[in-house]
Amino acid sequence: MLSTFSRLGSRSLRSNGSARLLTSLAEPSGPQLITSTVPGPKSTALKNELQNIQNADAVQLFVDYEKSIGNYLVDADGNTFLDVYTQISSLPLGYNHPVLIAAVKDPKNVATFVNRPALGILPPENHVHRLRSALLSIAPDGLSEVQTMACGSCSNENAFKAVFISYMARKRGGKPPTQEELISSKYNKAPGAPKLSILSFDGSFHGRTFGCLSTTHSKPVHKLDIPAFDWPIAHYPKYKYPLEQYAKENAAEDAKSLAHVEELIGQWEKKGCPVAGLIIEPIQGEGGDNRASDEYYRKLRDLSTKKGVSFICDEVQTGCGPTGKFWAHEYWGLRNPPDIVCFSKKMLSGGYFHKHEFRPKEAYRIFNTWVGDPTKLLLLDEVIKIIKQESLLENIRKTGDFMIQNMADLSKKYPVLHNVRGRGTFGAADMPTPEARDKLVKELHLKGVHCGGSGNQSLRLRTALIFEQKHAELFLDRLEQALKKF
Amino acid sequence: MLSTFSRLGSRSLRSNGSARLLTSLAEPSGPQLITSTVPGPKSTALKNELQNIQNADAVQLFVDYEKSIGNYLVDADGNTFLDVYTQISSLPLGYNHPVLIAAVKDPKNVATFVNRPALGILPPENHVHRLRSALLSIAPDGLSEVQTMACGSCSNENAFKAVFISYMARKRGGKPPTQEELISSKYNKAPGAPKLSILSFDGSFHGRTFGCLSTTHSKPVHKLDIPAFDWPIAHYPKYKYPLEQYAKENAAEDAKSLAHVEELIGQWEKKGCPVAGLIIEPIQGEGGDNRASDEYYRKLRDLSTKKGVSFICDEVQTGCGPTGKFWAHEYWGLRNPPDIVCFSKKMLSGGYFHKHEFRPKEAYRIFNTWVGDPTKLLLLDEVIKIIKQESLLENIRKTGDFMIQNMADLSKKYPVLHNVRGRGTFGAADMPTPEARDKLVKELHLKGVHCGGSGNQSLRLRTALIFEQKHAELFLDRLEQALKKF
Repeated sequence: MLSTFSRLGSRSLRSNGSARLLTSLAEPSGPQLITSTVPGPKSTALKNELQNIQNADAVQLFVDYEKSIGNYLVDADGNTFLDVYTQISSLPLGYNHPVLIAAVKDPKNVATFVNRPALGILPPENHVHRLRSALLSIAPDGLSEVQTMACGSCSNENAFKAVFISYMARKRGGKPPTQEELISSKYNKAPGAPKLSILSFDGSFHGRTFGCLSTTHSKPVHKLDIPAFDWPIAHYPKYKYPLEQYAKENAAEDAKSLAHVEELIGQWEKKGCPVAGLIIEPIQGEGGDNRASDEYYRKLRDLSTKKGVSFICDEVQTGCGPTGKFWAHEYWGLRNPPDIVCFSKKMLSGGYFHKHEFRPKEAYRIFNTWVGDPTKLLLLDEVIKIIKQESLLENIRKTGDFMIQNMADLSKKYPVLHNVRGRGTFGAADMPTPEARDKLVKELHLKGVHCGGSGNQSLRLRTALIFEQKHAELFLDRLEQALKKF
Repeated sequence: MLSTFSRLGSRSLRSNGSARLLTSLAEPSGPQLITSTVPGPKSTALKNELQNIQNADAVQLFVDYEKSIGNYLVDADGNTFLDVYTQISSLPLGYNHPVLIAAVKDPKNVATFVNRPALGILPPENHVHRLRSALLSIAPDGLSEVQTMACGSCSNENAFKAVFISYMARKRGGKPPTQEELISSKYNKAPGAPKLSILSFDGSFHGRTFGCLSTTHSKPVHKLDIPAFDWPIAHYPKYKYPLEQYAKENAAEDAKSLAHVEELIGQWEKKGCPVAGLIIEPIQGEGGDNRASDEYYRKLRDLSTKKGVSFICDEVQTGCGPTGKFWAHEYWGLRNPPDIVCFSKKMLSGGYFHKHEFRPKEAYRIFNTWVGDPTKLLLLDEVIKIIKQESLLENIRKTGDFMIQNMADLSKKYPVLHNVRGRGTFGAADMPTPEARDKLVKELHLKGVHCGGSGNQSLRLRTALIFEQKHAELFLDRLEQALKKF
């Protein structure tokens, strides 16, 4: 099962650049399955054991993280997969990157791993340096401040809080809160716990805690049985592909969405629950890799500025390079930057960048015991250096263009795969039904490619930033083999 | 500034046991301040720099985590403090415990620190073993399953979700959800997003994300300007001290609270938003170290069982030993265990133990990208071994009895300090006003003791589990010196 790519012949693939020399990793030459079934007997036995402790139905494989390397995941049975899903898009440099191994082994870092601080009250000496080096050095234009958090959900939840706090501070015009506000807030009552809302979009995913979940609308499995805030949900543009062919229809979709947003802002104001902020993904990464045009986002940002509605850009999945820019919203060419940009996953640490006005004036309002984890910032610091030194964003743009264009070509040959789309290697394509998509994911798995699904019937590609043309070629070969089964 | 404890004379202190021999740590003989002000110039300069990046008003000191050791925290200026607050109660073994250092340095653990998995789909080979060793080995009686999470707030949020999912499953009596439920859930509407509530108690703290925050009622600073669910809030018993003297009044407080809980369950049922679960702390650890009797908790548990209301015990602050038992609710002597027990802080990993019926039948309902962090489980595994090997629970019971009894004696001599209370070293005492409490915390700081506040006017003690009588003696000496200033 070693690489059979030679069969396909690399000249038949469109290439738009020479391979870059990234850090040399001892990667295998291709995927290799050694068990007759996947998952193999060891993964299956461990999964059965785990079922005694918790619901383990989502478990795909047990993994040998010592043996996994670069773009290759090795499972407990010794099977080697080319990984184009990378832990739900959360591994920036693949497995066991030597620079990260060196950071963990460095004796001067041991104290960081051993002593987790309450970062909000007792930060380590090097914390300011670390925030500058690991976070501010890649801050989105116009956002000069940053708040760390532990995960993506906590980042979005606290971004909402920052928006509400800022909204009420503006409303008070510099006056302190009243006694009535202070007391009523403790008991979940207005005016202290005000009726305010966050506008979100149909198809979005922003996390699974109660605030985030009230803005998540991708699948019932996330939402069923959980009480939610009654907050406004706007239509998100639904494009037809190929985009060139449906420019008029898609522009109408943009206009429909923008009109709906404006209408909802007015409606919610009238019903006494004003929209303080909106949250949106640059690409709906769980809801089906749904995309809207850069122009749509520029107009949405202008509308939110005009209406005084804070703009939260959720870059938990798109941030840290997979689209070929560090932040996907850089493609939009905004006149006025987002107010808040949330991150997690490939950033290793959760958190959000924000404009100064979203900094609460008082201590302890955006706070918790840990407010993040210095061990993740330590590793992120190394990741950022490698991204810069090895021009990984350029690598992702080139590799992504190569992969998506060749997928589009495959789609012509195998039309069961359609709506091929992507930015960088953040890519997707549709299958006709959820069942066909699931079958494709499984076929790819059996051919040594680990990928995922998005939305109801999309294939989801989320590679590491060290994913090169040679990996894309392997993937395309396996994809074609799998498509032959349909 | 080295230990002046000899001045006090150890015979004047009540001691109830000989000092135990724990792992030998190269601790200093006592606190030592070397700068004329606290915070010193380095901490102050770093804090000013941090203010350019975020609100840094809560920062107390910048810390040298390499030099900190055992019960002693060393700041950036070289000042050494006896730490009785331990990162908001989140360090089980103090600073730089040799067993944790060895775990981080162990080459076989490097891959765990380098490769963070999406634990819900691709757990490491050793995950089942780790869950058994680090978590199930200390599971509360009657709770056989465990779900990991990243932090305390996420643990409580997901415990609420597990309660709601279980409630609706019971209500459906085995039938699948209807199409209407599935579709309406996506848009935050009933019946899919049902009107259900979690009952909480006045004075409680359960975290700061939107679900948790709706059950938090300790201070306006946590709550102001943040929309909340309209969920029922019950009276929590307010005791008079000393307990022996006010047995009758305090029993009346118990009865009042229980009656209120029962009344609210009925009211919320009637208004169409039934109480699916309740959440309560064994000691209200942020709201003022407020305590209720073991009998109260037994009766509350019986009431919740009778009413079909799930019982969530929030042991985020009390769990992992500080009260002298692994779980504070073990003191209650329950007939029917809690349905869910949440943890974080000293457990290093967040999560919750639960009865089998709180396991969702379907995959992906309690889920997120990381669902916890194996690096924290790895360290917790070592912590649990040390707690057992070195009888640290016994150490905490003995040290706690010694410390609390001597504080009570000090309180007689300096009545400005009153309502001394504690279980293990999880201790507190009141001052007459918030200002007096803040002054006491500051005076202790200037005498080399790092402690914290709880509620409006309580001193909060949260030592590591390696806090021994000699440390308690030092603390008591400094406390007496500080009390002389009042």
